[in-house]
Amino acid sequence: MRFEKPTGTQDFLPGTVEKWQFVEEKARELCRRYNYREIRTPLFEQTDLFERGVGETTDIVEKEMYSFLDKGGRSMTLRPEGTAGVVRAYVQNKLYGEPDITKLYYIAPMFRYERPQAGRYRQFHQFGVEVFGTADPSIDAEVIALGYSFTRELGLSGVKVEINSVGTPEVRAAYRDTLLAFLTPMKDSLCSDCQSRMERNPLRVLDCKKDQDKFVGAPSILDSLDEECTTHFNKVRGYLDAMGVIYEVNPRMVRGLDYYTHTAFEFKAEGIGAIDTVGGGGRFNGLVDQIGGPDQPGIGFGIGLERIMLILEHQKVELKAVKPLDVYVVSLGEAAEQEAVKIIFKLREAGFSAERDYMGRKMKAQMKSADRLHARFTAILGDDELARGEIALKSMETGEQRFVKLNDLHLELG
Amino acid sequence: MRFEKPTGTQDFLPGTVEKWQFVEEKARELCRRYNYREIRTPLFEQTDLFERGVGETTDIVEKEMYSFLDKGGRSMTLRPEGTAGVVRAYVQNKLYGEPDITKLYYIAPMFRYERPQAGRYRQFHQFGVEVFGTADPSIDAEVIALGYSFTRELGLSGVKVEINSVGTPEVRAAYRDTLLAFLTPMKDSLCSDCQSRMERNPLRVLDCKKDQDKFVGAPSILDSLDEECTTHFNKVRGYLDAMGVIYEVNPRMVRGLDYYTHTAFEFKAEGIGAIDTVGGGGRFNGLVDQIGGPDQPGIGFGIGLERIMLILEHQKVELKAVKPLDVYVVSLGEAAEQEAVKIIFKLREAGFSAERDYMGRKMKAQMKSADRLHARFTAILGDDELARGEIALKSMETGEQRFVKLNDLHLELG
Repeated sequence: MRFEKPTGTQDFLPGTVEKWQFVEEKARELCRRYNYREIRTPLFEQTDLFERGVGETTDIVEKEMYSFLDKGGRSMTLRPEGTAGVVRAYVQNKLYGEPDITKLYYIAPMFRYERPQAGRYRQFHQFGVEVFGTADPSIDAEVIALGYSFTRELGLSGVKVEINSVGTPEVRAAYRDTLLAFLTPMKDSLCSDCQSRMERNPLRVLDCKKDQDKFVGAPSILDSLDEECTTHFNKVRGYLDAMGVIYEVNPRMVRGLDYYTHTAFEFKAEGIGAIDTVGGGGRFNGLVDQIGGPDQPGIGFGIGLERIMLILEHQKVELKAVKPLDVYVVSLGEAAEQEAVKIIFKLREAGFSAERDYMGRKMKAQMKSADRLHARFTAILGDDELARGEIALKSMETGEQRFVKLNDLHLELG
Repeated sequence: MRFEKPTGTQDFLPGTVEKWQFVEEKARELCRRYNYREIRTPLFEQTDLFERGVGETTDIVEKEMYSFLDKGGRSMTLRPEGTAGVVRAYVQNKLYGEPDITKLYYIAPMFRYERPQAGRYRQFHQFGVEVFGTADPSIDAEVIALGYSFTRELGLSGVKVEINSVGTPEVRAAYRDTLLAFLTPMKDSLCSDCQSRMERNPLRVLDCKKDQDKFVGAPSILDSLDEECTTHFNKVRGYLDAMGVIYEVNPRMVRGLDYYTHTAFEFKAEGIGAIDTVGGGGRFNGLVDQIGGPDQPGIGFGIGLERIMLILEHQKVELKAVKPLDVYVVSLGEAAEQEAVKIIFKLREAGFSAERDYMGRKMKAQMKSADRLHARFTAILGDDELARGEIALKSMETGEQRFVKLNDLHLELG
């Protein structure tokens, strides 16, 4: 019987996994510099958390969730996104009681039952941040700058941020009416997606790729903003300018989620057509309250790591992901092999990476292994060397070879 | 409406999560030295993989699995342990075709529907390794040494390895008969657990805590080993001796899984009574074949990270987990605040960790935040300093304060 991984999932194997480690390490390193601290929430949560936190009428909740009854009969769901669980943890653990604002990040798997296609997986991975406790526009700019720096420092080119203000719920309600007044006369000429969005979320109609030419004269949400929203948005822009973050204002970009307020943004990179958005986020000033917590403002983003990897590959970015082996110990004969086990254990205890053959292969095969592992040195031990308490140390870079005392080997690898 | 995390799961929050990062970093660092490379397999797999790979009659498969039907009607299961998925990936991705042996590690969440109790969670985390492609006893010793070094380098005291040989399936069948001949006369006097184990897996009866005194004269599996098994076991012991790994032979330790062959082992540390085993593993020479692959030998271990954390805490081991902040920028007044945003962005771009206040608080509150973050320096910016293009830099260690040019700030933090 043969087994296969579930459709839409991936095995990350040596050779590939090191690239993931590199990208994650970059995210962690940036979060250290920006003073964001990691949070890890359970892989599954009560299903109603996502119904409440993501929205019952969203595609995610309606069609894409991995939900199941646990053995106690409770409906649980593998998390389809990162924010709901973090907000739940923020509230349940009363992090709002701390004297400072709360700046969190996560690097974590998410699960959606989607039709598998390029760059879309049923288990996918996101790097995300969430900040709670301040509505200061400088935090909006900081969160955007963090995501921007992440993509840039990975070496992606053509990185661009699109920003918009989606205002407050009141602003949006007024804009919705203005927009519907513009859209209704042309409703019959719009695509079926647009027509159904007109019912459910008219603001997303302007996002439609097919009908762009019809929306040239559409009203802009930015003209509907009240003074508070305009001031906030202008301050965010001012901070982004001060930091040198390259952005464009896109008044039609509203993101999929209803809970965004004020700032919404997306990160883009030169990609392969349709998949050039690598992530995005926004401010969510009502969400903590909606999840049962106090009325604390929040803002965050999520960046899809599968998309990052795909675009890195597309742009042929070389990640410095492979760590060379310090030394490969070639041993010839049984006595030498036994000594090699000890030598290698000592080298590893001393902090070096060391490897040997475990299959009794000939010298040539062992040297090939050393090459495949990009060994900096090979150390060759036969019966003669063993009798003299020595080992032949060869630099794989220069080809130079010399004998060193067995006990001094670790001193020669520096 | 308030939401809670699912029973038996945990939120890992700042303050705790850094300890987890430290422990995981140690595992990764050791694996680099030992030349084990990471593998990541999907969080869920087809249910029948675990039925086949773990065993249909085990407690795990019978009672503890999180299984569900996906939207395509296929039975999936959140992985209850790490080996089955890794073996599946080894086979499906034909890693056995590589010229070298395959040395893998994982650090990953697992899921079992267990009754919640101290140190037992429904989502728990393991560090594990698996090696495929060689039956050489030096690899058994290497795998044991790696787990041993992991617990020791974390600073755990009283670390001990117990080892045993459970032989080949043929050896075990013969020993099973010998053992049943010893146990059958006393069957009625044994506890109900022992009686049921006599039917299902007699070798595990000797593990029973209650009936130890009755087993004093029990036959040892080591006396049933054939020559090949004895030679293998003696070589493993010889290598462990050579490396200075402290171990005891425990002929009654058989581990829970049927698929082990030859070497079985457990890692122990001075703990809180019953939870002193932190992990274990063994050789599994038939498992790859059983999962549909070629007849390749394997060996591995799994170490429970929740248990490691619990014992670290119990032993009051101080992990060097907290990274101090490089600089906290205190700003006074709106103009200074705007400048602080720019300064901090530049410092972060230059690789420093930097933080500021986002709530317009007074100087005293900002200084307290700097303390809480263990800032190495505070940099204080008011209107006067700003006018002079300077900032007051204070070492939090020495208390010394001096003015530096705004543009030179990053040079003064080294």
